[in-house]
This record gives sequence, structure tokens and C-alpha cells, in this order.
Amino acid sequence: MHIRVINPNTTHAMTETIGEAAKAVAAPGTRITASQPDSGPVSIESHFDEAVSALGVVEEVRAGEREGTDAYIIACFGDPGLYAARELTRAPVIGIAEAAFHVASLISTRFSVVTTLPRTLIIAEHLLDNYGFRHSCRRLRAADIPVLDLEENPDIALERIIDECLKAKREDNIGAIVLGCGGMADLTPQISDAVGLPVVEGVTAAVKLAEAVVGLGLGTSKFGDLAFPGSKRFTGRFAEYSDLAHG
Amino acid sequence: MHIRVINPNTTHAMTETIGEAAKAVAAPGTRITASQPDSGPVSIESHFDEAVSALGVVEEVRAGEREGTDAYIIACFGDPGLYAARELTRAPVIGIAEAAFHVASLISTRFSVVTTLPRTLIIAEHLLDNYGFRHSCRRLRAADIPVLDLEENPDIALERIIDECLKAKREDNIGAIVLGCGGMADLTPQISDAVGLPVVEGVTAAVKLAEAVVGLGLGTSKFGDLAFPGSKRFTGRFAEYSDLAHG
Amino acid sequence: MHIRVINPNTTHAMTETIGEAAKAVAAPGTRITASQPDSGPVSIESHFDEAVSALGVVEEVRAGEREGTDAYIIACFGDPGLYAARELTRAPVIGIAEAAFHVASLISTRFSVVTTLPRTLIIAEHLLDNYGFRHSCRRLRAADIPVLDLEENPDIALERIIDECLKAKREDNIGAIVLGCGGMADLTPQISDAVGLPVVEGVTAAVKLAEAVVGLGLGTSKFGDLAFPGSKRFTGRFAEYSDLAHG
Amino acid sequence: MHIRVINPNTTHAMTETIGEAAKAVAAPGTRITASQPDSGPVSIESHFDEAVSALGVVEEVRAGEREGTDAYIIACFGDPGLYAARELTRAPVIGIAEAAFHVASLISTRFSVVTTLPRTLIIAEHLLDNYGFRHSCRRLRAADIPVLDLEENPDIALERIIDECLKAKREDNIGAIVLGCGGMADLTPQISDAVGLPVVEGVTAAVKLAEAVVGLGLGTSKFGDLAFPGSKRFTGRFAEYSDLAHG
Amino acid sequence: MHIRVINPNTTHAMTETIGEAAKAVAAPGTRITASQPDSGPVSIESHFDEAVSALGVVEEVRAGEREGTDAYIIACFGDPGLYAARELTRAPVIGIAEAAFHVASLISTRFSVVTTLPRTLIIAEHLLDNYGFRHSCRRLRAADIPVLDLEENPDIALERIIDECLKAKREDNIGAIVLGCGGMADLTPQISDAVGLPVVEGVTAAVKLAEAVVGLGLGTSKFGDLAFPGSKRFTGRFAEYSDLAHG
Amino acid sequence: MHIRVINPNTTHAMTETIGEAAKAVAAPGTRITASQPDSGPVSIESHFDEAVSALGVVEEVRAGEREGTDAYIIACFGDPGLYAARELTRAPVIGIAEAAFHVASLISTRFSVVTTLPRTLIIAEHLLDNYGFRHSCRRLRAADIPVLDLEENPDIALERIIDECLKAKREDNIGAIVLGCGGMADLTPQISDAVGLPVVEGVTAAVKLAEAVVGLGLGTSKFGDLAFPGSKRFTGRFAEYSDLAHG
Repeated sequence: MHIRVINPNTTHAMTETIGEAAKAVAAPGTRITASQPDSGPVSIESHFDEAVSALGVVEEVRAGEREGTDAYIIACFGDPGLYAARELTRAPVIGIAEAAFHVASLISTRFSVVTTLPRTLIIAEHLLDNYGFRHSCRRLRAADIPVLDLEENPDIALERIIDECLKAKREDNIGAIVLGCGGMADLTPQISDAVGLPVVEGVTAAVKLAEAVVGLGLGTSKFGDLAFPGSKRFTGRFAEYSDLAHG
Repeated sequence: MHIRVINPNTTHAMTETIGEAAKAVAAPGTRITASQPDSGPVSIESHFDEAVSALGVVEEVRAGEREGTDAYIIACFGDPGLYAARELTRAPVIGIAEAAFHVASLISTRFSVVTTLPRTLIIAEHLLDNYGFRHSCRRLRAADIPVLDLEENPDIALERIIDECLKAKREDNIGAIVLGCGGMADLTPQISDAVGLPVVEGVTAAVKLAEAVVGLGLGTSKFGDLAFPGSKRFTGRFAEYSDLAHG
Repeated sequence: MHIRVINPNTTHAMTETIGEAAKAVAAPGTRITASQPDSGPVSIESHFDEAVSALGVVEEVRAGEREGTDAYIIACFGDPGLYAARELTRAPVIGIAEAAFHVASLISTRFSVVTTLPRTLIIAEHLLDNYGFRHSCRRLRAADIPVLDLEENPDIALERIIDECLKAKREDNIGAIVLGCGGMADLTPQISDAVGLPVVEGVTAAVKLAEAVVGLGLGTSKFGDLAFPGSKRFTGRFAEYSDLAHG
Repeated sequence: MHIRVINPNTTHAMTETIGEAAKAVAAPGTRITASQPDSGPVSIESHFDEAVSALGVVEEVRAGEREGTDAYIIACFGDPGLYAARELTRAPVIGIAEAAFHVASLISTRFSVVTTLPRTLIIAEHLLDNYGFRHSCRRLRAADIPVLDLEENPDIALERIIDECLKAKREDNIGAIVLGCGGMADLTPQISDAVGLPVVEGVTAAVKLAEAVVGLGLGTSKFGDLAFPGSKRFTGRFAEYSDLAHG
Repeated sequence: MHIRVINPNTTHAMTETIGEAAKAVAAPGTRITASQPDSGPVSIESHFDEAVSALGVVEEVRAGEREGTDAYIIACFGDPGLYAARELTRAPVIGIAEAAFHVASLISTRFSVVTTLPRTLIIAEHLLDNYGFRHSCRRLRAADIPVLDLEENPDIALERIIDECLKAKREDNIGAIVLGCGGMADLTPQISDAVGLPVVEGVTAAVKLAEAVVGLGLGTSKFGDLAFPGSKRFTGRFAEYSDLAHG
Repeated sequence: MHIRVINPNTTHAMTETIGEAAKAVAAPGTRITASQPDSGPVSIESHFDEAVSALGVVEEVRAGEREGTDAYIIACFGDPGLYAARELTRAPVIGIAEAAFHVASLISTRFSVVTTLPRTLIIAEHLLDNYGFRHSCRRLRAADIPVLDLEENPDIALERIIDECLKAKREDNIGAIVLGCGGMADLTPQISDAVGLPVVEGVTAAVKLAEAVVGLGLGTSKFGDLAFPGSKRFTGRFAEYSDLAHG
């Protein structure tokens, strides 16, 4: 099984972090390819960053389709481009936010999310509503660190995340914590040890859910809402999308 | 007041249709500019089309900011790129789906939506949930016509839309109909006459809501969730976004 | 365009305040008439006050219909008599609570409401649920001032409102504030300046939404739920309603 | 125990029907007084009728308070004036719509409502949402008969109601039916026999819930949202409310 | 009328407490039998305890059916076995959690729940969602006392409960308190006196609701979801259930 | 990894069917043990059956804990005893209904459920609400076959299920179908072929989700709501539960 883990931002170090985390939990027969778009933001911390990164996600899925891919993971906690990506492939496409929510709700009755910057909270909040996990999440919390600090100042970042997780444990009446950023993928063991609660991280969760869906012989439904887009003309710098041959 | 009506697809005829509809309801002091991106799909009928068109919307907002613009309208019923666009400006940004839902809920207790292709229904359904209008919408209906047929086969398209609206009137226990596609903007009077119900069309609704917000001296909140994105590096074909000077 | 702004309470000074605020934002072609019922409570701070004031609202709409009116505004934050008023006219009828919620949700992702007395919070809370804006409102807050203090002790009232708004800004993770009382209509600029957040006030918001709906050639749907009431006999002091000639 | 059953409309025959139905289920120690306002609509079939009738309800509660009353019932399926009435007394005030919903949810997992005119459906629908019973109600149905036909053409009315109830039984996957009009109070046994489902009628349900609440030594909470209204001046034909002495 | 109050745990002293509380509010013609299963947990403080106690509830209903019973009450705040019990009888079956929620919502707009151990909060929270009372409950609070302390250390338990109720009164913006444990049934008057808010206790509430339903000639619907289970074979220690003769 | 698949009913043939289906999708390193309680109903088709079977589930988890088990699956579509089972172990416990809902929501935007008897629909409906998947499920459908017909008349059962699935495909605007009974586990390939939609079956889905959770090093949270039950005395036939040694 070949899973393509797409880092929607263009910071190579983060792609490597994410890829390593994915490999660490992959089943013996699973091959992980971690990739990133050439073009896009170096980190994703706003709706604008998200909108741009969705194009990168789409490109990576197209590349994956050419190579043969069994499942895709969108490794940014806002799940940018999720439905668009699903339209382009028969393979399952799993976002790390949804993956983390699914897994957390299987092992606890209520969880809190700990993410990076306060302004990304609204993105996660919208996802909880869209996916139906609003009632399972007690509180959305931000450790108030820029995404790239996870790479550049990992010790300080780790300390702040652990602090916020411990606050969640004390105050939120929860059974688990969801880490709200793909860049935290390598920190899970340390956070988990320090906090003493099950800590669900999305990249790893998504790898296992992707393996699960593929193992069931299932993939993105091509009947109805997520069918391949009909062929049509695109103009300008997106003209290449005109010749999308689907299916 | 200068309102920029952005057609997120790249079909110029549709931009003109939309612009004419907008001008027809604009207040005396309102200047309407209808524009479209150079690059993107010629119609928007899938999540993939939406994701690509969001970039076009963003470009048009950036162009608008350089020229001075008092309000933006995103004239596709999926409101593509709405939150991203809002982050880039102090001006209000109004999607035509949200505009139609707001106005319909001011004049009726319940409405139905009549759109083009069945596969776009899920996009509208998600918006109803996100915006809080789920309970106000009795039913989402598709007339089963491709978007561009609104330009190319307007008579057949009109007939099918009217048929579906009349079914909604008979079966859905509603007080109003929302037209679910920017390309229907010029058909509103005919549909309204034929159906005998208030028919709310998004482009025109958005123009009046934009005038309303600007008239109140208000604009997109720059405090918190929709603040200008922080400056950061973008790579590759999006490198130009690195030098976004905000505010 | 003639908009009748109905102050549902019988305090003339407040009617004037409201009328002035409405005129300040009205478009050039809009004529504002601010009126109040002869009979009813001098302020509205309970469900009982609301029930009585709904009759006053109804009277004012009937008066408006005799004169010719293009739109009505119900200028009390509980929107008393809203659906009853809508039944009596083809013109749009806009409540100031709904108006403020609609506008606030166009410029921010989340807002808080700041109102007068704690006991009116439940009325606003019910409206948020009914209109579908529950998820957009982070918190309902009361400055703990009687409504008439807005007229009689404006300085103290203003100070308390600003204090509560600043608390909301600090604590609620919001992008805008909704003022929860028609009597605050003249204070918006001062509050807005002091708080540094977009402040949405319902009377002014309703004027612009009324202009928007009228400008679209739309009005209250007379098909179905909000059709004119059938003719019927009323007894006693309401006997005059027996001869309601509708339409 | 003295229960005052308030018929919010002014049709005396319906007051008698309601009073008889109430007495038929009252416990041995319960005294039923059925009353109606002097002023108001002869039937309640619109929001406008509801708004006017709320004043009648308020008057009847004031009369009840002078006489000493242990519980009030508002015997119209829209529960007009419910919160206002609750503010005026320490006694419990029960609406017949809420009563029927509560009882139906105790004996079935899902129910349908069968009411009179289609245009009153929206009122019942709003109540289901407000009270939290939306998920328990499969469908709202109207037998399409004017309220007064229940008095004037009882046989035809009965037949139509039974027909609609039988349709609900066949199509709605329900365990019980709620009758949606106080004027149906005397028809319950016949409907129940003909339909072969538990039929919950609001007047009788409200009597038993009122006995229940009084029997528990409880009444409307006077702490917070439903406290007596503060004393204030009313003008004009409502001036008499200025001297409301509460508590 | 014969009401069987089932204490789902096996602590006889608590059965007596519950029985006394039930008798104290029963109507003159109501006979109360308080019983408990022979087998099961001495207190119910977890989902596991609940699952086991549901079998005891079922046994008690079967015993009640042999004797002739008009209504059943499940006197544990998690309402264990409620739907199963309902399937076994034509009589109404009322859980004390649902009873308390219904009554509290008739006398207040919002209430808080005060229960025993923190880990039982999730059970009450799920019930609020299932029954549709989520919006009526401001907050779920635990006094942090084991259930049996209500029998063994009543003074300390009472003090803690009152403390938590007073906190709820100060902080939660509520009109009533719901006591969240059958074992508190005898403490209601003292708590109510100390707190100065209406205090709704489930056992007593359920007795009055049971009287209400029976007084209406209604019982559990045997049409559809809650019909008697079809006859089938059970094996092993539950083999006796094979010969359930229903109806 | 050792997964114990618990068939909550006592029909051995169904246990074998379920076990085979589980083995067919298990990963190379996964050992499947399919077991069933000695005591309980031969099929589960009512809330009563569910309540009894929950005890069997609990017994099987206790047996599993003695042997060492890495994950449990509750292979009945009502997920009986799910939370109780979770309290007894550090291993993950996955219900087949929740598993199917999770997987279906990863590959489609909307699905329908096809189950056996109409009376079990309410159980599935409650689960959709509890788990947060209500909006993802278009319709709950019953093929109207008794559970044991899946073993005894498999051809007729299969035909009816396929018929109902095809109706769902035509009418429900869905992208996937969820099979609503553990006994359908071996029929998935045939149904899927005949229907031409992704068909999600719960037993197989649960095996893969269990592997996923274990593969992440996660298990049921023992902090808070799902901690091991405190030690306490049980009486009578459940006395053995008194000596539960947890953890």
C-alpha cells in the first residue's frame, strides 16, 4: 500500500518531520511518501494561506494519480482542499483534523484541541461543526506559537504546548487531547508523557485511517457528490486543468 | 461607493450578465465594476472548480485593493474563497449564497433553493449549515442544467428552472425561492413572474447588502479571526504573495 | 422610499433618538418616520412588556399601511410582534435584533451582544436560536442598566456599556459587538471609538437592510406562512380588528 | 387546587368545550375554571391573532391572581403569551402545545402533530424548536379546517382529522399523535378509537402537568428570567398596567 | 393507581428513602410500592453499574407486570434500562432524570444539574442531548460525593450539595436546580430552603408525571418503536426470558 | 495484535459469520477471536434484547481481559454496552455502528443505512444523534427481515437487502450505504457488486479501526469519564462483579 502524505505548506523540514511521524506508525506493508507542493506558503496560519495551499494539495494529488497511490493524507490541521482532492481520485483522502477527531472520539467521550496560533482556532471550530464533532470537543485552545516555531524553536514550542495541554487536563473535563497542527507530529510522545492523557495527533491518525479504508477495499465514492469533475476548459495559468483525464 | 463584483469563473459573458444585474439594483451613488480572473475554470460545478476559483477571487480582491474598492461581491453560489478574501481587506466581502439566504430569511419563514447541477447541491447544503440557515431552507433542488447552458441555451434553461421552482412552490411549503447560481442573475424577473413567489437572487441581494454594510460605516473586522494575514514567504508560482503589504 | 421606524415603547425621547440614528444612515432617497404607539410601556424589559408592546407595533403598522409605507422597522431588541407585523403588510418588516445579527455575521465570524438588564438576555438568547445565529454569538452580556437610564443618565450608561464591551473584547474571542437595545442607537460612534471593534447597532442596521430589501423589489412574502390573516371577528376592545381589509 | 384554564380566543362555546375536557381528567381535589378574555379574536389562526390573544391571556392571569389560582393553562396550541404570563405569577403556567409535546415524548419515541390550518404549522414548528422537541416530531400535518369548524361543523372536521391521523400512522413511523388545537379537546376519545394510536391532547395534558407541578410544591421560578416585571409606567389604554403590584 | 418505584441499585436503605419521598407527593388515590432488584450494584456510579442495573430494572418491571402495575418509575438519574422497560409494558415508565428535566423546563427557562460524582456527569449530559433539553441546562455540576454517602454521611453530603447549588445560583444565570441523584430525594426540602431557588427532584417529579400520564388514560405506545419485543429464545442464565408472554 | 470480536447475541452460526468476515480484512499480524456470550438472546431486535446482551458483552470483555486482548469489537449494530465495556479495559472498544458511520463519512458526504427490522431503526437513529453523524445520514431504511433470516434464509434476505439498497441509491442522493446489522458481514461483496455503490459494513470497519487505534499506541482513555469503575459491592447473581480488579 502506498500512502502519499501531503504537507500542504512548502517548508521541507516540516515535510520531513511529518513523513517520519507517518513512517513510525505505518504498517509493515505500507510505503509512505511525504511530499509538498513547490508553490505555496511556508506555513498555514490563515484562511488565505489555506486557500493558496489547497492548490498545492490538488497538484500533489494529481502527481500521486500519475504514480499510482492508494491513499492520500492532507497534513495540515485545516484539511485544506479536502473535498476538491477527493473529487480527483478513487483513493481515500484523509485530512489530519478529521482523522484526529475520529480517533479521539473512539477513545474518549470528550476531548480538547490544542493548536498553534489563536487565529487558526476558527478554522478548527468550523471543521468540528462541519464534521459533526462539535459536541465531542470541550474547548479549542491555542498555545500561541507560530507554526514555524515548531521547527525553529522546538523546545520553547514544546513547553508551551505541554503547558496548554496541562491546563486542558485540569480545566476541561476531558479524556483526551487532540494536537491541532501537522508540525506537532514528532512531539506526540513527549507531550503524551508529560501530560498523562491520551494525545491524538492527526498525521499518525490519518495514516492508520487510510490503511483502514484501503484495507476494507474502499475508496472515495465516485457516485454523486464526489464524482470526478466533468471535463471543462480552464484558462490562464490553470489551463493545464482543462485536460484532466479522470477515472 | 465602488463595489467590485467578482465573477469567480472566467466566462466573460457571464461576467457581463452578472454586472448588468448588479447595476440594475445599485443605488444612485454606487459604481459597479464586474470583473473576472484571467485564470480559472469557465464554470464552477465541483469542489475542484471551487478550489481553483478561490485563487481567482483572491487575485481580484488584490486588484481591487490597489484601485480602492468599498465592497466586494463573490458572485458564485458556493461563495468560494470568502474567508480568504475577507482577510485581505477592510472592505466588506459578501458571497451571493449568504446574501440570498440572509434576504430570503427576512421576507419568509422558509425557502427552497433551486440550483443548476445536482452535484452542486452539497456545496449549498454545507453553506446552509455553516451560516446557520439550515432550518430556514426546506429543500435544495437542482434543475439539472450545466452552468454554461444559462448562457448558451437560455430558453431551455429558463424553462427547467421555472419548472423546478413551480414544483418547489407546490410541494415544499415555502414562502420564497432562492436562485442558486450567479448565472441566473438576469432571469430573476421572468422566473419571479412565472412562479408567483418572491424570488431571491444572490448577485442583486449581495449588492444591496454590500451597500448596507458600507452605509453603516462598517467593514470586515480586522480584529481577531479575519485580521490581515501576517507577512510570510510564499514559494514558486505564488511567490508574489510574499510581499503582501496589508492594512 | 418611506421607512417607518417603530419604537415599540412609548417614551418619546427614545423615539427621537432612534429616529435621529435612522436618519443619520438613511440613503438620500429614503424618508424616515419615527413613531411610537400611544399605548404601552415606557420601556421594554420583560416578556410582559414585550407582549403589550407587540400591540403597539401592530397599531403602528396599521397606521403605516393607511399612509403608504415601504418598509417597517421594529426598534426594540426583542423584535416584539415581528411575525404579526409581517402578516399585515406586503412591505418588509425588519427587527433590530435580527438586523444586527445579520450584519454582524457579514463582517465577523463571531460576535458578542451587550444589552441593558440581565433579565432581557433570555429574550435575545431565544432570538439567536430562532434565527439561526446561536453559533455566531460567543456570549450575551448585560451592562446592568435600566433601559431608560440610556435617556436619563446617559453618561453613566455609556461608561458601563463601554466597560462591558471592553470585557467582551478581552475575553470572548470575537470580531464584533452587537448593541442589544434600541436606546443605544445614538451611542454607537462613541462606543465604537472607545472599544476599537466594529460595533453593530440594530436600528441603523435595520434601516440599511430595509433599503436593501425594498431596493430588490422584494417584500414580505404573502404566500403561505406570512399571508394576510383571514378576515374574522374580534371582540371587545379589539373589535376594530374585525374589519381589517388586507392586501 | 384551583386551575384556571384560559381559552385565549373569545368563542364561548370553545371555552366550554375546553372546560369540559379539562374537568374530565381533573383529579378529585382539582377545581377547574374555564375562562376567556372579553376582547380578542374568535379564533387564533395567525401570528396576528396570537399577538392580540396574548393580551387576553395576560388579563386572565391578572384576574386569576386576584381570585387566587394555583395553576394556569393557556389553551391554544401556539402557547400565546406563555412567558409573559409566567412573569405575572408564582403559579405554574402551562401551554397546551408544550404539555402535549412533553406527554407525547414520555410514551413514544416519535410523534406527529395534526393541526387545523396549514398556516398555523409554522407556529407549532417554531415551538418544537424552542422547546427542544424538534427531533421527537416526525411531521407536522394540517387537516385543513378552520378552527371554528371544530364547533360549527364538528362531523366534517372530525372526519378530516381522523383521515390525517391515519395518514400519519401509515406514513410517519410514529408511536403517538399530538392534536394541535385546543378546540379538538372533546374529540380525543373518538380520534383515539378510530386511529388506534395513543392520541395526546394538549388541554387534558396541561391539566395533569399543572396538577403535577403544584403537587410538587413548585411554581414558576421567581428568580431570574421569569421574575415579576419591575414596576413601570404604561401609557394610554394600557395605563392600568402601571400599577401592577407583584408578588 | 399503583405506581412501582424501582430503585435500580440494591441498597435497601436507599429504596426506603426513595419510597418515602414518592409517598410524600403521591395523590390520595395513588399507592406507591418501592422495590429494588435482588441482584446488582449497591450504587450506580458508572456506565458499567448502569448496564448491570438495567437488568434489575427489567426484572422489577416483569414482577410489576405479574402483580398489576399502572406506572413504573426508574429511580436512578441515568434512567437505566428506560427503553427496554418501556417495551415490556403498556404502563408508562418514567425515568427520574427525564422527569426532572421536564418539570424544570416548565417552571424556568434555564436550570443547572447538581449530581454526586464527576464521572456521572457524562451520563446526565448524554441524557440532556437525547431528550432534547441540552439548551435548557446551563451547567452540569458534581458535588463530588459518592452516592452511598447520601445514606452514610448525610450531613456532609447535604452541606456539599447545598454549597454546589449556591454556586450554581450565583454563577449560572438559572431559575431552578435539578438534583441529579435518586438518593437526594429526601433532602429536597432542606436544599430548597437553603438555596432559595426552586429545586426539582426526580423521584417526586416522576411520581407526578406518572400520575399525569395514567390520569390521561395513556401509557407507553405499543405501536412501533416500543411495541412488545417479539418472542424469541434466550440462552443460559437468561433462558427464562424466552417465555416472555407479552401484551 | 489480538482483537476479540464479540457477537452480543448467542447464535453461534452468526458468530462464525462475523469471525470470518473479520478475518478476511485483518492485517497480517492481527489475530481475530470471535466469541459470543453463553447467555442472552439469539438475536437482537429490540431495546430489551439490547439491555440483556449488554451483560453478555461485559462478560466477554472480562474474559478478554483475563486472556490479554488488544482491542474489542461489539458486533451488533446497536453497539450494546459500549460505554460499559470501555470502562473495563485499557484496550479500545469499537462498536460496529460507530465504525461504519466513521468510515462512511470518510469516503462520502452522505450515506443511508439499510438494516433489518423497522423497529431497530430507532436504535440506529439514536446512535447517529449521539455520535454526531445525524447530518451525514440521509435516511434510515429497513429491509424488513428478521435478523436470523440472514442465517436461515440468506437468499431471500440478500435479495431484499439489495432491493432496499438500490432504492436508497435511486432516491436518497447518497454516495455510500451502511449495512445496519452484524449478520450482514458476509454479504458485503455481493451487495456491493449488485448495488454499485461503496458499501460499508460495520464488523470489517471496526476491525480496521481497532487496528488503527492500537497501531497508534492508543486505547480507551482511563482519565475521567471512562476510567475503571471504582470497586464496590454487587449483590445476588451479579455478586461476582464485586471483586473486579481493575487496571
